[in-house]
Amino acid sequence: MGWFSAEISTMKDLFLHGLQDIYYAEHQIEKSLPDMIKKASDAQLKKGFQMHLKQTRGQIKRLDRAFKALKEKPKGTKCPAIDGIIDEANEIAGEVDDKVVLNAALIAAAQAVEHYEITRYGTLTAWAKAMGHSSVAKLLHANLNEEKATDKKLNTLAKTKVNRK
Amino acid sequence: MGWFSAEISTMKDLFLHGLQDIYYAEHQIEKSLPDMIKKASDAQLKKGFQMHLKQTRGQIKRLDRAFKALKEKPKGTKCPAIDGIIDEANEIAGEVDDKVVLNAALIAAAQAVEHYEITRYGTLTAWAKAMGHSSVAKLLHANLNEEKATDKKLNTLAKTKVNRK
Repeated sequence: MGWFSAEISTMKDLFLHGLQDIYYAEHQIEKSLPDMIKKASDAQLKKGFQMHLKQTRGQIKRLDRAFKALKEKPKGTKCPAIDGIIDEANEIAGEVDDKVVLNAALIAAAQAVEHYEITRYGTLTAWAKAMGHSSVAKLLHANLNEEKATDKKLNTLAKTKVNRK
Repeated sequence: MGWFSAEISTMKDLFLHGLQDIYYAEHQIEKSLPDMIKKASDAQLKKGFQMHLKQTRGQIKRLDRAFKALKEKPKGTKCPAIDGIIDEANEIAGEVDDKVVLNAALIAAAQAVEHYEITRYGTLTAWAKAMGHSSVAKLLHANLNEEKATDKKLNTLAKTKVNRK
């Protein structure tokens, strides 16, 4: 189900659907990061992915708390957007031999994932605030800030790693 | 083909693949915007989408010039990431009756598209610079700045439109 469906008729429905979308996304990211950690040959990048895996688990816990605050059962909903992004990130099957190229591709894939999360958390935080769910907004904003910080770090890595070559 | 494939062995291959990915994405966005313009009931949002359609056409022209500068034929490559994001944005088939909810969903979909473009143009600009293609980097950076400005405008719209409700 995408963002638009027969089941969505109120802002609350839309908000809840968005939460389920990002809940599904975080779980997919949690599943795909171990493979990216394994493939990254650069020590700094590997460490960065390991830290992000830990962070992702913390973000899922915050989402659990957000669902609880709304008196809803935490659940995910399959969405084509994150599936497409993760498909691209998951396609790393050792075909790229050159390590510099592989690391550059890994960073690009991770940044695409981060930007998906940034846009969704940005939207959800704004909606939560507008709907008066301030405690939920705080949880979502904490996740948003972590994603932004990760994207910034990846940006720096992208510049230094490719420039070195 | 995703970001990782047997055909990609050098940074130049990766860069060219990224250009083809965003070239395909811009064309898909050009195709999907008229439907979003039709669905947006808010005058400001409709105008914003119309302006973005014009901008998208200009961005495609810049990409044409980037390919030309690299002595490559402009072409797109189908990628699951943008297809997934646009699938979600395209699913607006009138199921959402409430106009405020529909506009909020349209803004969220457009922001997801913008963030995909921001991440890809950010990566490609960094790579172009690192590889010494400064004229290409300038073209990509011009597109990046336009996408960032559009996302900012959508952010403001998201806050005012939902808050009004």
